[in-house]
Amino acid sequence: MIKVGIIGAGSLTAEELLKILLNHKNVEVNILHSETYQGKKVDSVWPAFKNLTDLSFSAPSLQKIKEVCDCIFITRPHGKASEVVKELNSSKIKIIDLSADFRLPDLSYYKKWYPGMNHQIPELLSKAVYGLPELFRDKIKKSSLTANPGCYATAVILSLAPLLKNNIIKKQIIVNAFSGVSGAGRMHKENFNLFGDIYGNLKIYKPGTHQHTPEMELTLGKLAGDEVKITFIPCLIPVNRGILAISSHPLENKLTKKDIIDIYQKFYKNEKFIRICENGYPEIASVAGTNFCDIGFEIDARNNILMAASTIDNIVKGASGQAVQNMNLMFGFDETEGLISH
Amino acid sequence: MIKVGIIGAGSLTAEELLKILLNHKNVEVNILHSETYQGKKVDSVWPAFKNLTDLSFSAPSLQKIKEVCDCIFITRPHGKASEVVKELNSSKIKIIDLSADFRLPDLSYYKKWYPGMNHQIPELLSKAVYGLPELFRDKIKKSSLTANPGCYATAVILSLAPLLKNNIIKKQIIVNAFSGVSGAGRMHKENFNLFGDIYGNLKIYKPGTHQHTPEMELTLGKLAGDEVKITFIPCLIPVNRGILAISSHPLENKLTKKDIIDIYQKFYKNEKFIRICENGYPEIASVAGTNFCDIGFEIDARNNILMAASTIDNIVKGASGQAVQNMNLMFGFDETEGLISH
Amino acid sequence: MIKVGIIGAGSLTAEELLKILLNHKNVEVNILHSETYQGKKVDSVWPAFKNLTDLSFSAPSLQKIKEVCDCIFITRPHGKASEVVKELNSSKIKIIDLSADFRLPDLSYYKKWYPGMNHQIPELLSKAVYGLPELFRDKIKKSSLTANPGCYATAVILSLAPLLKNNIIKKQIIVNAFSGVSGAGRMHKENFNLFGDIYGNLKIYKPGTHQHTPEMELTLGKLAGDEVKITFIPCLIPVNRGILAISSHPLENKLTKKDIIDIYQKFYKNEKFIRICENGYPEIASVAGTNFCDIGFEIDARNNILMAASTIDNIVKGASGQAVQNMNLMFGFDETEGLISH
Amino acid sequence: MIKVGIIGAGSLTAEELLKILLNHKNVEVNILHSETYQGKKVDSVWPAFKNLTDLSFSAPSLQKIKEVCDCIFITRPHGKASEVVKELNSSKIKIIDLSADFRLPDLSYYKKWYPGMNHQIPELLSKAVYGLPELFRDKIKKSSLTANPGCYATAVILSLAPLLKNNIIKKQIIVNAFSGVSGAGRMHKENFNLFGDIYGNLKIYKPGTHQHTPEMELTLGKLAGDEVKITFIPCLIPVNRGILAISSHPLENKLTKKDIIDIYQKFYKNEKFIRICENGYPEIASVAGTNFCDIGFEIDARNNILMAASTIDNIVKGASGQAVQNMNLMFGFDETEGLISH
Repeated sequence: MIKVGIIGAGSLTAEELLKILLNHKNVEVNILHSETYQGKKVDSVWPAFKNLTDLSFSAPSLQKIKEVCDCIFITRPHGKASEVVKELNSSKIKIIDLSADFRLPDLSYYKKWYPGMNHQIPELLSKAVYGLPELFRDKIKKSSLTANPGCYATAVILSLAPLLKNNIIKKQIIVNAFSGVSGAGRMHKENFNLFGDIYGNLKIYKPGTHQHTPEMELTLGKLAGDEVKITFIPCLIPVNRGILAISSHPLENKLTKKDIIDIYQKFYKNEKFIRICENGYPEIASVAGTNFCDIGFEIDARNNILMAASTIDNIVKGASGQAVQNMNLMFGFDETEGLISH
Repeated sequence: MIKVGIIGAGSLTAEELLKILLNHKNVEVNILHSETYQGKKVDSVWPAFKNLTDLSFSAPSLQKIKEVCDCIFITRPHGKASEVVKELNSSKIKIIDLSADFRLPDLSYYKKWYPGMNHQIPELLSKAVYGLPELFRDKIKKSSLTANPGCYATAVILSLAPLLKNNIIKKQIIVNAFSGVSGAGRMHKENFNLFGDIYGNLKIYKPGTHQHTPEMELTLGKLAGDEVKITFIPCLIPVNRGILAISSHPLENKLTKKDIIDIYQKFYKNEKFIRICENGYPEIASVAGTNFCDIGFEIDARNNILMAASTIDNIVKGASGQAVQNMNLMFGFDETEGLISH
Repeated sequence: MIKVGIIGAGSLTAEELLKILLNHKNVEVNILHSETYQGKKVDSVWPAFKNLTDLSFSAPSLQKIKEVCDCIFITRPHGKASEVVKELNSSKIKIIDLSADFRLPDLSYYKKWYPGMNHQIPELLSKAVYGLPELFRDKIKKSSLTANPGCYATAVILSLAPLLKNNIIKKQIIVNAFSGVSGAGRMHKENFNLFGDIYGNLKIYKPGTHQHTPEMELTLGKLAGDEVKITFIPCLIPVNRGILAISSHPLENKLTKKDIIDIYQKFYKNEKFIRICENGYPEIASVAGTNFCDIGFEIDARNNILMAASTIDNIVKGASGQAVQNMNLMFGFDETEGLISH
Repeated sequence: MIKVGIIGAGSLTAEELLKILLNHKNVEVNILHSETYQGKKVDSVWPAFKNLTDLSFSAPSLQKIKEVCDCIFITRPHGKASEVVKELNSSKIKIIDLSADFRLPDLSYYKKWYPGMNHQIPELLSKAVYGLPELFRDKIKKSSLTANPGCYATAVILSLAPLLKNNIIKKQIIVNAFSGVSGAGRMHKENFNLFGDIYGNLKIYKPGTHQHTPEMELTLGKLAGDEVKITFIPCLIPVNRGILAISSHPLENKLTKKDIIDIYQKFYKNEKFIRICENGYPEIASVAGTNFCDIGFEIDARNNILMAASTIDNIVKGASGQAVQNMNLMFGFDETEGLISH
């Protein structure tokens, strides 16, 4: 039984994290750090937690947290998370950071894609482990600072990794991705996440400039053994949870859908959270509320184009579920504990 | 004042068509042909029409319709529309067919993309005019049989025509398009259009095989002066009305967003229903309930990729609104009559 | 052709009002007063207006507005509208105020139901006309200051007026009403109108204390010739537009549904915007985007209870459409001009 | 570890039931009886079950089922369930019927409220136990045939039981209830559950005549020790899951909100699945996906009216979750097993 804290505990991802951790048999949550809500009971802020926990929010010092927690999840915004890591760094505490602050390998990427942010401890960038278990499981097991991937990055990387690893597609890639509005978090963003902004609507934003792009390019580049360039085009959809990522790729050789499925099934053999669609295509409804990533395909044989599509729940596999999967690896628990019932 | 009839008047597109025609100052609707609803008042079937019309559905013979109508809209399913056209053909009546039966130039395309359908009068395929006014206005003016384009085809062709006409993009194209559920019509389709199938969900269907593909390829091919190949990937979204089509294209030359906007503004000069987004990107919410097609762009300068996106209301510009636009041209009315108030 | 201005022109109701006024043949909009947007073109703020108007927002003095407008719509928040009316008062300009500032007949009601608001010109309270045309048409025709009713009040009063006028139900009434989120306007209200607050949810708020209650009680009380007491319970629904109001009433005498329909058809004889449902029940979908109010009934004969329900579009009949209906009366135009096409 | 079967396993409630039972540590599901899907793997019909179960649908004889199952859930439509119960009756198998066939105490009610249905074994009506654990826990523990309550009945009875037991409100009651579309099941019902029927809409249906009414009246009547009459008015909302029930009651004595909360907290003391809202009002979002029933109140002190409202997930506490709660009681398991993680 480890003691676990959440810093930035008033966030949407913290809420989901707490929901998962309360079902985790190896974990006791002992700190929910929130300056906004300190002193309040969780169920007074989020009525859905009534009868499920007696926990309250608090705002102890990081020094105190170091003493009482074995593991810390940080769900603060990017730019703010590195401040916390800097303080916690010298301790034996294991950290899973859900922000973007430690996802990129050096400061130049960070400055380019997160302009205006001041990273507080750039020397850790190269030491943090990118927490995508299906690709980096062994490193995560030994990690004490894990950077939880971006939601879009999770969906895109998982859908393309086998293709790039096996050198099946070109390295100049276009991906369209469609996300539920919870991806925008709990703060109001003008013209963006009021009900009236998105109901009955689709909303393309940041085409070509979204900050999850370099995670995708660098991670997929490693697998490809070559530079990968991605034009990433995100779009909000009138759904609360879920991401669908779609990309299409000219094939150099004739491959059948069966060939592609075989390649993915081999690549993701024994992966509990990856599901390859042999029939049909991935749907958001099948993964909502779960830590699964569903991946499916089609071949346009007329034009020899491969479509690959994946779906995840942006708050679970795209954030808090994956964070728990990382914790499970870092502490030697069953990787699915808290995420699939047994 | 012309006399207008609708055959297949119980359909969703007929309902929208009637709504538009009741506001049209040059038109009197005199026949709403529906076997299902014959004898019923329109407002008893569709309460939204109460106080707006006293019309009733009826089921007169086609012979009778020939005598009393100047113009007929056919909103029957593909395969069924050509039966009607065959009967009406020898008369002076002008026909606008909203089905797919007369969109393709010869029977081989029809047989390939609409397998199992028996075309009743294939000799008219080459005579029918493809009713996309922005591209074929002059032909439509003289047409007595206009094939109203598919909803997806309208959104895709309008978004790409200037690029292909000006030889800016390659002719091997991938398009993703997202449609509101009204595109599926009023009949139940299993796993497809029940509320529970699509709420909180996205649903890819027929990737690479959708029947609107050949309309796009042939029409854009004419503009390009060369064969155009399209991998078209449609997807249902939890919205009632609206289509967003997105495609991305490697550019051979460096072009700015301003360059692209200039090309489109020139191509669509004086077009009342085409709106080029100088800022932001097209949204479904801006076109819902209208006959507009909004088109917008972005350049991913890092990768020299052009994104083009368009939105329409699938039932208006993608069906009934465009049908009225065609009627206006065929009868010499103001092209916007009934579609934009003055 | 009258000259019309809108003050508070950046609001959601102003947007709808402009949409309607652009289709009105007797009106030229010459002022869109908005401090927030002054200098901007309407279509740069609201892309849906592109190709429909070249108007820009501006912020002239009220003195200037008095000189150039014949009619002013005020769509500022309650408390702020009376400031504007105070300034415009001495002129010959006719005013339609969409706020609550002039809906209640004396200051004591205002202070009780709008606590903390300072009314700037209470002496006008008794002179303003309550702008519900179906009940107060003759007064509105002569009015120079019309208080446009609240959206909920419109739906509730219209659904109950014939019952109270005919002394059919008790005067202690409970009404539940369900409103689309646009009723909350365009500003963020915490826990209330973010997409995630209301998607997949219903949200009861202010039960028994909503500020539209006194409008209902006083207006219906006048009809009843006696005090009417209403417990009004509003609730947000995951829809953008539309209100459904439902109330149930023990009947003293046995009445059939047909009896009730007759009473309503007589009461609302010749009313263009009231539609009595002879079959089925009112639905939001049938009135969305229109100025209609649909009203329907059922009798629970087992318990001798009458259910009355009404639907309106909260932004049209509940706000901007009704405001134009009032303007039409105040200026002697056809009452349906701009609201129903001819 | 008991062996459990589901008959009618292709239904929406069966799907949810299976999801819950797969997480239940005392249960092994061994039969998923479906004639429609027999021979198919569960995850080929419902992709969401991939990696979660290897079960397949089958269609063994009821004789066979009797031999291999300890417990059977029936999720067939009303009228069809009694056929199954008739066959299984003589065995030691324990039955939980999710249909309406055994909810009413004698045939006269059944014939009145389910006209046209032929009950196959009416002699069991008086022996079946009404499976609302919060009211009838002791009887359920000894039951071998439990009639799982209707979804609306669950929400309404739980929200009103303490008031009637304590003689606080009148026995002539009006309840409005709002249900997500999943309540309509998986079959198409005309004008009712297509996406386009309910998107952007509310849909009142069967006011005063819904078949769950007698369950409510009889169950609450028992508590009140007197006849209770309910006018029940259901309405579909554009949400997939969840019910909100609202009723308002004139109070004879002055009671505060605190008084009411005390009465409910006492009545539902130690109930794990009942949550009394001390602040705010019940929301569907807080109970979706859970077996909780949230109940909240307001007093309109001006008019001395009590509003009571409750929310449940119609598929969980309103169907499959409550069925598992009943099973837990019938087999002596922890009542929350499978329903709340520990």
